[in-house]
Amino acid sequence: MQKVGIIMGSDSDMPIAEKAIERLKKYQIPYEVHIYSAHRTPEEAKNFAVNAKANGFGAIICLAGKAAHLAGAIAANTLLPVIGVPVKSSALDGMDALLSTVQMPSGIPVATVAIDGAANAAILAAQMIAVNDSDLYETLAAERKENAEKILEKDRVLNSN
Amino acid sequence: MQKVGIIMGSDSDMPIAEKAIERLKKYQIPYEVHIYSAHRTPEEAKNFAVNAKANGFGAIICLAGKAAHLAGAIAANTLLPVIGVPVKSSALDGMDALLSTVQMPSGIPVATVAIDGAANAAILAAQMIAVNDSDLYETLAAERKENAEKILEKDRVLNSN
Amino acid sequence: MQKVGIIMGSDSDMPIAEKAIERLKKYQIPYEVHIYSAHRTPEEAKNFAVNAKANGFGAIICLAGKAAHLAGAIAANTLLPVIGVPVKSSALDGMDALLSTVQMPSGIPVATVAIDGAANAAILAAQMIAVNDSDLYETLAAERKENAEKILEKDRVLNSN
Amino acid sequence: MQKVGIIMGSDSDMPIAEKAIERLKKYQIPYEVHIYSAHRTPEEAKNFAVNAKANGFGAIICLAGKAAHLAGAIAANTLLPVIGVPVKSSALDGMDALLSTVQMPSGIPVATVAIDGAANAAILAAQMIAVNDSDLYETLAAERKENAEKILEKDRVLNSN
Amino acid sequence: MQKVGIIMGSDSDMPIAEKAIERLKKYQIPYEVHIYSAHRTPEEAKNFAVNAKANGFGAIICLAGKAAHLAGAIAANTLLPVIGVPVKSSALDGMDALLSTVQMPSGIPVATVAIDGAANAAILAAQMIAVNDSDLYETLAAERKENAEKILEKDRVLNSN
Amino acid sequence: MQKVGIIMGSDSDMPIAEKAIERLKKYQIPYEVHIYSAHRTPEEAKNFAVNAKANGFGAIICLAGKAAHLAGAIAANTLLPVIGVPVKSSALDGMDALLSTVQMPSGIPVATVAIDGAANAAILAAQMIAVNDSDLYETLAAERKENAEKILEKDRVLNSN
Amino acid sequence: MQKVGIIMGSDSDMPIAEKAIERLKKYQIPYEVHIYSAHRTPEEAKNFAVNAKANGFGAIICLAGKAAHLAGAIAANTLLPVIGVPVKSSALDGMDALLSTVQMPSGIPVATVAIDGAANAAILAAQMIAVNDSDLYETLAAERKENAEKILEKDRVLNSN
Amino acid sequence: MQKVGIIMGSDSDMPIAEKAIERLKKYQIPYEVHIYSAHRTPEEAKNFAVNAKANGFGAIICLAGKAAHLAGAIAANTLLPVIGVPVKSSALDGMDALLSTVQMPSGIPVATVAIDGAANAAILAAQMIAVNDSDLYETLAAERKENAEKILEKDRVLNSN
Repeated sequence: MQKVGIIMGSDSDMPIAEKAIERLKKYQIPYEVHIYSAHRTPEEAKNFAVNAKANGFGAIICLAGKAAHLAGAIAANTLLPVIGVPVKSSALDGMDALLSTVQMPSGIPVATVAIDGAANAAILAAQMIAVNDSDLYETLAAERKENAEKILEKDRVLNSN
Repeated sequence: MQKVGIIMGSDSDMPIAEKAIERLKKYQIPYEVHIYSAHRTPEEAKNFAVNAKANGFGAIICLAGKAAHLAGAIAANTLLPVIGVPVKSSALDGMDALLSTVQMPSGIPVATVAIDGAANAAILAAQMIAVNDSDLYETLAAERKENAEKILEKDRVLNSN
Repeated sequence: MQKVGIIMGSDSDMPIAEKAIERLKKYQIPYEVHIYSAHRTPEEAKNFAVNAKANGFGAIICLAGKAAHLAGAIAANTLLPVIGVPVKSSALDGMDALLSTVQMPSGIPVATVAIDGAANAAILAAQMIAVNDSDLYETLAAERKENAEKILEKDRVLNSN
Repeated sequence: MQKVGIIMGSDSDMPIAEKAIERLKKYQIPYEVHIYSAHRTPEEAKNFAVNAKANGFGAIICLAGKAAHLAGAIAANTLLPVIGVPVKSSALDGMDALLSTVQMPSGIPVATVAIDGAANAAILAAQMIAVNDSDLYETLAAERKENAEKILEKDRVLNSN
Repeated sequence: MQKVGIIMGSDSDMPIAEKAIERLKKYQIPYEVHIYSAHRTPEEAKNFAVNAKANGFGAIICLAGKAAHLAGAIAANTLLPVIGVPVKSSALDGMDALLSTVQMPSGIPVATVAIDGAANAAILAAQMIAVNDSDLYETLAAERKENAEKILEKDRVLNSN
Repeated sequence: MQKVGIIMGSDSDMPIAEKAIERLKKYQIPYEVHIYSAHRTPEEAKNFAVNAKANGFGAIICLAGKAAHLAGAIAANTLLPVIGVPVKSSALDGMDALLSTVQMPSGIPVATVAIDGAANAAILAAQMIAVNDSDLYETLAAERKENAEKILEKDRVLNSN
Repeated sequence: MQKVGIIMGSDSDMPIAEKAIERLKKYQIPYEVHIYSAHRTPEEAKNFAVNAKANGFGAIICLAGKAAHLAGAIAANTLLPVIGVPVKSSALDGMDALLSTVQMPSGIPVATVAIDGAANAAILAAQMIAVNDSDLYETLAAERKENAEKILEKDRVLNSN
Repeated sequence: MQKVGIIMGSDSDMPIAEKAIERLKKYQIPYEVHIYSAHRTPEEAKNFAVNAKANGFGAIICLAGKAAHLAGAIAANTLLPVIGVPVKSSALDGMDALLSTVQMPSGIPVATVAIDGAANAAILAAQMIAVNDSDLYETLAAERKENAEKILEKDRVLNSN
């Protein structure tokens, strides 16, 4: 199975990245995690992107805050689908990271998820793979059913009082 | 090859949708275009989503403006990757559509692109397919090279004056 | 008397929902509370909406955060008045939920109240019922007078020092 | 049948108000239209609100731009449901009117619809009345079906090419 | 000397109002403090405004949060200068109160100061009075000089280390 | 009678400034208009402010766009009341000018009016003067009555159709 | 004299870039203009930056819109001062470009000027050079004096009417 | 070597200013720190700016919050490059300070860095000096390499688990 790359711009993004890692583990999707900054280690970030397909990756999740260029910088150097997770930092409530990630120019898309939405980034990567992987598809379908059931169970508990 | 679905919430979104259609045609990716509203034809929207995988779709692009729920409503009813295009309408500069599309709750991701970014939505869909389709991959690689070459040619013209 | 439905997208919205429940209790308006997610349990949400009138509801209050589609999804499936309460979550100060709730397309209105304004949602539902229920009207009139009196009493205390 | 009041803060709001008037006419709901400003004719605005119930109104739609206080000022003086339509003006894209209308303090709700969303204000008023008026309910149900059918017809035309 | 009125929409605004009170005390400007809500006690708010000039007021400071209509409602009922203090509340960082206070329609100005800027509201009121009161003018001039001197003293301390 | 100063940061602000000039003329309040930039002619701006009281001014209206520092720079150099008019320019809808004008630090207030609200700035200046000038007070009272009457006349015309 | 580089992300930015070019010409500062996209020609953008110092550049001006990564991508690959000009595009009023340009992480600064502020970018570059170039310093001082004089002349004309 | 000036508008900005001071110390760049307010000590702020070049400064860093005029006021009185650091204060998340600092009118640039980005302000000042100072250039190059190495070391640790 193709691997999913998880790149974060700073090790301070790790608590958010963990939410993606946890999901990929649960889905038994192979992954690699790296700390590469678009601005502080641009060469390593680029090299990762350029070689990602050859290295067996099928999608790349990028997490970054503030002027969050990481997803865009990776997307500029690969044709794999790149998923961007804007990370909330101390000022501006994550709006800066969201706009820096999602407002990409024509030709270089970034699949952006919600601010701090790393779990959804992993699910999205899994959905991409599951299009051609019926086992994973069943896993995702079961999880979704479970999540729905949990909510409905809470609703039943609430209404059995 | 799996088809790409393009769903728009209103026929007024067609000028934006055209940018996605044009790209898919160019890539020779089979597609279907529909006008289904999350709010005005929720049943048809849902039915499309529920049956999309069985009907041979591999990704779904959704375009909507204002309180843009279409991508989320589709994503809630399929496990295929759903790509959301927030459409700018008369007020609020598209910020309402962007936030309504991207800020999805955990469990139901939408791969959001820029406001009015339908071309990128098509490219993103193509990239997802190209992970396992080396012909399409070559097409995308060639296009990206061409796009770069066009910019560099403009730079050369500018500097040959 | 017609019932008021209170639907929340997640059980984490319960502290906000309590403010609506408390008011309806005080007004002796029958109500039902449910946890249904527009995205995670779309079928149950829809079924509630489709059957709400037949089941004796006269208005539905929906609480949701982030890309808050719940009120819109309910409104798309009923002709009862739907009241939307945008819930503030960790990022963006509730602006995402507000815009996702209020900026509905023509044809499917949602009566939106302030961010976290669940008490007002209940009062609004009560006002709708009170148009044809003079007892409830008197209750609301008395409450409003009491609220005014409380403020004026605070003013008097302040000025008697 | 109870009347619906339509109050606008300035005659420049008339093009937006027309969208509400047109709907009420279509539904054969009796209505009155007034130009009263919360700031420039506060006494007349208040008097309208104070007497609205006695004068046979069942709901009041208020349109205003900028620091849009009209809906709140009306709501402060009546227990009828008040529907607020924030009107976009030259600066700030209508955000000022939206926040001034929706962010009401506890105790005095305003049922806020989208910026310039006067058609939905009328539909919302109709829905409130229709709870107890099965003819109007049928009218609204038929209109909603027609609207859905129009969209689906557009979809069929699009796909018959 | 004319009095300054300080009106707050809710007793929860008292900590902010205290900053204005403290200044007026220091300047020995007579003042009255009231809790009147534009929405919950509109009649009392209006009566205060209508009679303010006859009751010896020369300026009125209004504090309110969220859809902050208080300053506008007072200004609609008096020709005295009205100073608006937008108060920050739990959501939206005070932006709602700022826009609701400052974006007044032509004809009814509100002199708006910064979010939570009650001290400046008092200084502004004092400046208005000081135009025709040379003692107060000297007091303000001395205070401004002192404030400058405090900053410069801090600068000297910083640079004497 | 004390004069009102009108200072604009650029001659491109003249169309907005005209709305203030027109009002002051109508009220027969003596005024002076100047083009001084806080950034491009800081010395002249300062000198105007420093000497304004001695030169017979009673209030100063400042108009500026973008990072609108003019009102603050004038207020830093005078104890007269300074009224700030944020001017909308090509980007950001005037929000930059609004925040730059209104969010003044403690000690140096600016009485801020709406974006492009120069007419209200003049009315506010007139209200400050009218506190001690009963003729002007009557003029303002009459104008306000006329404005109300115009609205009510429009309402009558609307309802006589 | 060191050259100033002007890089724009797209040839559609040329009308804005012209404002910088015009200034540099006037100051007789040597310059080079290039069209390099951070996303579509990342290698050329990087190469320009890596070699800029060796190629005789002393500062680099970057213009880009939307998720404006160009200035950051250049800054990541050079130690020369990089000046970022956020360019307004069709949606979001340039706020996306501003935040993407200015909110850089610690270690890699971008000297950001106003939205579409290319003239100021050139002046800023000139000021950097002028610190060690007294002729250029005199040119800038003369220009500033002239600009002030133009404003004051407009003020005189205005007041000689 | 030319000195760098660090001016803060209030001593409450010191914790942010410390981040700039620390960097300049590390680079052995001489500096001076002052507390001067654009509004409360405008004369001292101006005098510092007017004499800065003669006093041996090569760049000036200004920190201020809210309606942050300090950088602009300094820039209006010197031709040295002025670097603005918008400081986050209690309301509006620093957006007010950012817009007040960056949106300067044509002719008077301020090199704006991120909200609270004082470290980057110091690095930017150092980069300006380093253009003509190869020792400092080497220091900056070494630091940047170290920073990259730290990130890569973290990446190695992460991947050696």
